[in-house]
Amino acid sequence: MSQIKPVNAGLLGIGTVGGGTYTVLTRNAAEIARRAGREIRIAAVADRNIEHARTIVGADVRLTSDAFEVVRDPEIDIVIELIGGYTVAKDLVLAAIENGKHVVTANKALLAVHGNEIFAAAHRRDVMVAFEAAVAGGIPIIKALREGLSANRIQWVAGIINGTTNFILSEMRDKGLPFAEVLREAQRLGYAEADPTFDIEGVDAAHKATIISAIAFGIPMQFDKAYIEGISRLESIDIGYAEQLGYRIKLLGIARRRAQGVELRVHPTLVPAKCLLANVEGAMNAVLAQGDAVGATLYYGKGAGAEPTASAVIADLIDVTRLHTADPEHRVPHLAFQPGQLRDVPVLPIGETVTSYYLRMRVLDKSGVLADIARILADGDISIDAMIQKEAGEGESQTDIILLTHRTVEKNADAAIARIEALDTVQGKVTRLRLELL
Amino acid sequence: MSQIKPVNAGLLGIGTVGGGTYTVLTRNAAEIARRAGREIRIAAVADRNIEHARTIVGADVRLTSDAFEVVRDPEIDIVIELIGGYTVAKDLVLAAIENGKHVVTANKALLAVHGNEIFAAAHRRDVMVAFEAAVAGGIPIIKALREGLSANRIQWVAGIINGTTNFILSEMRDKGLPFAEVLREAQRLGYAEADPTFDIEGVDAAHKATIISAIAFGIPMQFDKAYIEGISRLESIDIGYAEQLGYRIKLLGIARRRAQGVELRVHPTLVPAKCLLANVEGAMNAVLAQGDAVGATLYYGKGAGAEPTASAVIADLIDVTRLHTADPEHRVPHLAFQPGQLRDVPVLPIGETVTSYYLRMRVLDKSGVLADIARILADGDISIDAMIQKEAGEGESQTDIILLTHRTVEKNADAAIARIEALDTVQGKVTRLRLELL
Repeated sequence: MSQIKPVNAGLLGIGTVGGGTYTVLTRNAAEIARRAGREIRIAAVADRNIEHARTIVGADVRLTSDAFEVVRDPEIDIVIELIGGYTVAKDLVLAAIENGKHVVTANKALLAVHGNEIFAAAHRRDVMVAFEAAVAGGIPIIKALREGLSANRIQWVAGIINGTTNFILSEMRDKGLPFAEVLREAQRLGYAEADPTFDIEGVDAAHKATIISAIAFGIPMQFDKAYIEGISRLESIDIGYAEQLGYRIKLLGIARRRAQGVELRVHPTLVPAKCLLANVEGAMNAVLAQGDAVGATLYYGKGAGAEPTASAVIADLIDVTRLHTADPEHRVPHLAFQPGQLRDVPVLPIGETVTSYYLRMRVLDKSGVLADIARILADGDISIDAMIQKEAGEGESQTDIILLTHRTVEKNADAAIARIEALDTVQGKVTRLRLELL
Repeated sequence: MSQIKPVNAGLLGIGTVGGGTYTVLTRNAAEIARRAGREIRIAAVADRNIEHARTIVGADVRLTSDAFEVVRDPEIDIVIELIGGYTVAKDLVLAAIENGKHVVTANKALLAVHGNEIFAAAHRRDVMVAFEAAVAGGIPIIKALREGLSANRIQWVAGIINGTTNFILSEMRDKGLPFAEVLREAQRLGYAEADPTFDIEGVDAAHKATIISAIAFGIPMQFDKAYIEGISRLESIDIGYAEQLGYRIKLLGIARRRAQGVELRVHPTLVPAKCLLANVEGAMNAVLAQGDAVGATLYYGKGAGAEPTASAVIADLIDVTRLHTADPEHRVPHLAFQPGQLRDVPVLPIGETVTSYYLRMRVLDKSGVLADIARILADGDISIDAMIQKEAGEGESQTDIILLTHRTVEKNADAAIARIEALDTVQGKVTRLRLELL
């Protein structure tokens, strides 16, 4: 195949994923060329730290500290953006598109926040922006949703799409340790960053859920409408009670189609202990997608790390290489549906969510308390599915009641909770977690 | 999009999957057109039973009992082959190709046995033969292996790719019932056919494993070299002992890359009870693929049934529609690697397989028996990983020994087993099952 001209890629940022991409492309060069039909080579690398970059790449790769130079380089066919963030990365991606280059990116934040603008620009310039690596690392979930399930009206997608929080939740459950302690361990082991906010507060998962919602339902990115709740306030006691009731707690990103709009939300969620998603442990990711024809399908693998993420970046490079000179109509549309065929379906406010709930409350150990609570729930048309009432310890005047409800509209649940909290016999706030039967 | 001419598909065979395909294409027509960029319509249907076919399809669909008429019809762009088997289906597929039509098929038997000839013909005529539905029903595993993991040197793939046998094994374990009884129940429930041979003897799984091996490693189809062992001789007692040792027994299709060739085999396999594959229950399918960059990834869903299989057929229809008028180099190669870039890597004889073993033997309850057995294994360089020796019941002179070995070459294991069977203290044959740690 040496007679066919190689495709030249320019790599912006050679950190963990960039280094992995270079390594895998080099190691598997022969096999990749056998698949793609031509060689794919990194012709230029831009990084702030040129000396470090030189320790990774071969002498034939041009190095520069000016990423815009790569983006303007007429020799470059595809720009691989692995810088991250919304600012410089956005300028670079838009400049690459304006220069007629295809873009491969792992940048979920950029796409969730500025994707509509970026895909519109790419459409105008007839170039591809590929982003398999932006969601769930090495798992080919974008391809599965966008192409593999294309026969389906996708009904919902629920995923463990942040490895840091799944590692923390697995450890909290396994070892019975509180959040703060496990977070410190995760930071020590490199599973959590020094500033873990984006991960633990659910922002990273919400970026990914936003992208999933767009390609699953054919709607624009609406990250600003996503409901986001992280795991930093989750208490070990609730993990324990959930376990007793046959559930595990996972941070899920959920996109669900409803008659009036879509639900787009990230929050700790009780899931039945027997379902596969509940058994995804440590830093692994998994996405469950429900289509009207196929039913439920699940995709599982490593959601982060140098080579797993590189696997997705390079799969995109191969796809883009194959369709490089093809007419735009031969390509898979960026958001799964043809441009102009997206629908402006609104993201519903969280109060309109329909789901089940786990409620934990501290009550006086007196007769009639449970009856009062059950009455309030019945008034709100909320059925009780399971209950634990702890026996008060000797000499204690208070005890815990834990309830699981059937599905109801969240604003109903909130109203009932407010009434429960107003009872003299209920102490403090009710702890409320959402529950999905999947 | 009404200004763009629809793509016309001709459907050969409107049984379960054909009916599902028609139903889903009709129900989701609008959404499918929004994805594909044009309408996909079934213009003609060929079926032996025209009257039955008419009860399924609309009046605008031409019906015929002559499938060759559809294959020759100049109005038809894509032929959907859902007849099954190797004989007429082969002639029809080759005739469709010769007539310059693209083919979508769910026929794993045809591809595993005649795939090399069919893909060569398709290559000569510049048409696509798409076959997502041939492996694991609605799970987009062909796309994942061929495109999603294209950066990787795929090391091995192991899958539960036959729902009938997985249903039977799940029931045998859950209910402690023998094979024959569960098979009858499976037939009653429609999970097994009246003649279940192809399923229970592993032939169907071997067809699928053959296809997987080709696209994972870039080798031709070599179904005749596959090692095939079904579940009809599996005893409940071994399911029970496996459970005690922390394993479950699944019928796996395995394709593994080795230095000297590839392993291609289907057999009942012990897998650790904690791994996700062990927890795939009932008629569900799942495929675990290991790539050098991505690590392990898993794909799970319904492996059969009208609409799940239709989901895969229609995904192919959409892909083919999109690339219908594209140059061949813009298409994904049939077997993942460019034609001419396949490698003639041999399938290794089963004796060259390297795996672990579960051995059960009936022995005289005398001292020294275990020492003799352990000595034979040590002589063959086979290490013991775990053991159960049942205490003989009161008045019984025989008992069971169950051993798990470390990994070894199968011919070594066989030689050791022959020596063990020759011991005076060992009664009858040793039951030998393979074990994979995955």
